[in-house]
Amino acid sequence: MKPCIPKGTRDFSPLEMAKRNYIFNTISDVYQSYGFQQIETPAMENLCVLMGKYGEEGDKLLFKILNSGDCFGNFTEDELLEKNAAKFAFKACEKGLRYDLTVPFARFVVQHRNELVFPFKRYQIQPVWRADRPQKGRYREFYQCDGDVVGSDSLLYEVEFFQIIDDVFHRLGLSVCIKLNNRKILTGIAEMIGEAGKITDITVAIDKLDKIGLDAVNEELCQKGVSEQALTLLQPIILLEGDNRDKLVSLKASLRDSAVGLKGIEEIEYILGYVEKLQLSSVVVVDLTLARGLNYYTGSIFEVKTLDMEIGSIAGGGRYDNLTGVFGMEGVSGIGMSFGAERIYDVLNQLERFPSDSLKTTQVLFINFGEAEVCYLLPILTSLRAAGIRTELYPEASKLKKQLSYADAKKIPYVALVGDNEITKNKIFLKNMQTGEQRLIEEDALIRELSVGQIK
Amino acid sequence: MKPCIPKGTRDFSPLEMAKRNYIFNTISDVYQSYGFQQIETPAMENLCVLMGKYGEEGDKLLFKILNSGDCFGNFTEDELLEKNAAKFAFKACEKGLRYDLTVPFARFVVQHRNELVFPFKRYQIQPVWRADRPQKGRYREFYQCDGDVVGSDSLLYEVEFFQIIDDVFHRLGLSVCIKLNNRKILTGIAEMIGEAGKITDITVAIDKLDKIGLDAVNEELCQKGVSEQALTLLQPIILLEGDNRDKLVSLKASLRDSAVGLKGIEEIEYILGYVEKLQLSSVVVVDLTLARGLNYYTGSIFEVKTLDMEIGSIAGGGRYDNLTGVFGMEGVSGIGMSFGAERIYDVLNQLERFPSDSLKTTQVLFINFGEAEVCYLLPILTSLRAAGIRTELYPEASKLKKQLSYADAKKIPYVALVGDNEITKNKIFLKNMQTGEQRLIEEDALIRELSVGQIK
Repeated sequence: MKPCIPKGTRDFSPLEMAKRNYIFNTISDVYQSYGFQQIETPAMENLCVLMGKYGEEGDKLLFKILNSGDCFGNFTEDELLEKNAAKFAFKACEKGLRYDLTVPFARFVVQHRNELVFPFKRYQIQPVWRADRPQKGRYREFYQCDGDVVGSDSLLYEVEFFQIIDDVFHRLGLSVCIKLNNRKILTGIAEMIGEAGKITDITVAIDKLDKIGLDAVNEELCQKGVSEQALTLLQPIILLEGDNRDKLVSLKASLRDSAVGLKGIEEIEYILGYVEKLQLSSVVVVDLTLARGLNYYTGSIFEVKTLDMEIGSIAGGGRYDNLTGVFGMEGVSGIGMSFGAERIYDVLNQLERFPSDSLKTTQVLFINFGEAEVCYLLPILTSLRAAGIRTELYPEASKLKKQLSYADAKKIPYVALVGDNEITKNKIFLKNMQTGEQRLIEEDALIRELSVGQIK
Repeated sequence: MKPCIPKGTRDFSPLEMAKRNYIFNTISDVYQSYGFQQIETPAMENLCVLMGKYGEEGDKLLFKILNSGDCFGNFTEDELLEKNAAKFAFKACEKGLRYDLTVPFARFVVQHRNELVFPFKRYQIQPVWRADRPQKGRYREFYQCDGDVVGSDSLLYEVEFFQIIDDVFHRLGLSVCIKLNNRKILTGIAEMIGEAGKITDITVAIDKLDKIGLDAVNEELCQKGVSEQALTLLQPIILLEGDNRDKLVSLKASLRDSAVGLKGIEEIEYILGYVEKLQLSSVVVVDLTLARGLNYYTGSIFEVKTLDMEIGSIAGGGRYDNLTGVFGMEGVSGIGMSFGAERIYDVLNQLERFPSDSLKTTQVLFINFGEAEVCYLLPILTSLRAAGIRTELYPEASKLKKQLSYADAKKIPYVALVGDNEITKNKIFLKNMQTGEQRLIEEDALIRELSVGQIK
């Protein structure tokens, strides 16, 4: 039997783990520096919590866990012979694997409402599971990195999320552009062109502008029954050019009769006012074609693209009015975002932007010359490790060549040889595996130099 | 609908997460300092990988995932009407949730054998799932923290694991005792008393000595058919007293005719020789009644108990000959251990040993007095965060009382007030929320003092 893993899932090797941890730790550190606190929820949720939250298609993509014990208890023979898989699953499975972190978070807020301090700032980095057809870059198990603030409608949190995005990508060494829009503006536009009832169709269509082009967008709108007159009114707004201020000025004129549209513009102006003062390294662009699919957004929406590579968005989020209504707790507004860790990984990997000290390989391997030398070395190894230096001792007094090839294969940058000669001198013979350079060095100096991650 | 989570699972609050991360990070840091590298495997494994590895009882405790799409495809009507849940599950479910980290690791080693460098030192910290009956302190989802070295039978790795145990618990502030035994000695004892065939029954019985007492152990052995003569021979060995050296001397005499038993003693002596030189802070005790249930151990076995509290073992492990044979790769020997993170959490929590700086709460909250003050504060907040200080700005210019009570509820130790007066002086008015002490301080001084985690 040749063992393998389920399709769409992955093993992560030491190198991949080090790189993934570098991304997760960066995001985690930044969230924490803004007072966000981490939570975790169980991998399994009750199916009644998950079902109906992701549309009909989503329900099908939930991984369902067969009840343990007698899963047939509730079934009549007729029901079984019906062979209705969907109906069976719902009755024979009480639990499913979480599909995202948003619904579990909403459930968490409702369940723990009396223990939480509002505004509640939480982040969560955990895997989610979807029974999607596996494709290149799309997995059945993948991590999400969500941050949310619930219980406040202060726009300062929009500003804060822009700072968080800026900090994270600055630390990761990526240049990014943050696109900003507001659902209220989209609503205002729909009103203004006389198609308020078609707001969803309109946002879904113009969201595709980047991908399918203007003609295809117009065609789709036409098919959805948007009138020709409305389409004509829409064109100049979709195609608005100029800098953020230019766009807002002409938009304000177009939406002068829509209270909700003007409110959206006011919100964007407020946010941009602070963002400009902050002098972020990221570019912030008002983009009226940004719509974001999820229909629970009600205010600001934003999406992040890197300027360093052609790839879809690597982060995004928005403001919502009512996260927890579906669980019977009304009026919980907030704002949330998600970093696309898997895609960020691909970008950093392709651009080779992972810093070498993020890779967490062993820093120095001590060669094993036998029991006497090992006894001499033990306290030295202890000092190095206490100083945080990743240190290995080869487990056997094998031939030097074998020990060196272990260091080579594991990409360990330094090898230390301590034999009779070195013991007498109380020094360590150190070999740089990349340059071949070798020298005698004292224990203290070795610790000092490896601790700061550089050795001359 | 009042949402809830499946029984036996848990949400982790910010405080619990900070404490759990403190434990996981400590274990992780120590493993890394010895050159161990992290891997992760998918939550779902193919059921054929998991089934039959944990005994009949274990198979029942696996969470099985219903095939998506038509789960009835493979069934005849007769099969369905049989209502055989176990048979059905095996046919309608291809995947299951991992039950531990050992079997997935064995699968990983076999699957990636050509990419790995041996000896391969890996650690893995991930949740596992078991459909056990939930009880106090026993969960259906819990984390395991495993470390293993495969591809070497050097006893220096035993020494290394003892150092790792010592380091981890020293950093966590717990005094521990490491109990050490060797399966070869247990085999030698069974041989010596003429009951070689009953080695499993004997180890299972004497493993319970601590819990059920000597009489009950003897009774169990008797029931299993161990002869009276054998029992008589066994007594002095079970009850061996004295220090490690005394025990080994008298054991060596008892086992003089058992080659395998003497080999076990020799191994223990070798390990103790190094351990004594290392002057660990942990107590290391040879305990011949330590057996450890898992029957894949073949050499050293060890278990860790804390001296600070009455509770079961908080870590344990042992050496094995053949981890991957079940997947067709013979001869992979190694040694592994597991930290009982959930129990370590309970111990540290009950003893209140979590250091305050592990709790990752916001360190300082800036009061919001309005737009002008916020604009003045933004660059100050940026500097604090860049220095790694967890800093919040209250999102609205609410009443001071409301803002202070937010700090209170979130246990934020410092509140900073910056109004007209402070802006003019270019200083920050800082209030210690615990002592009530307040003072004017400069930005630089604030950063310096909060960075080192102390402020006078």
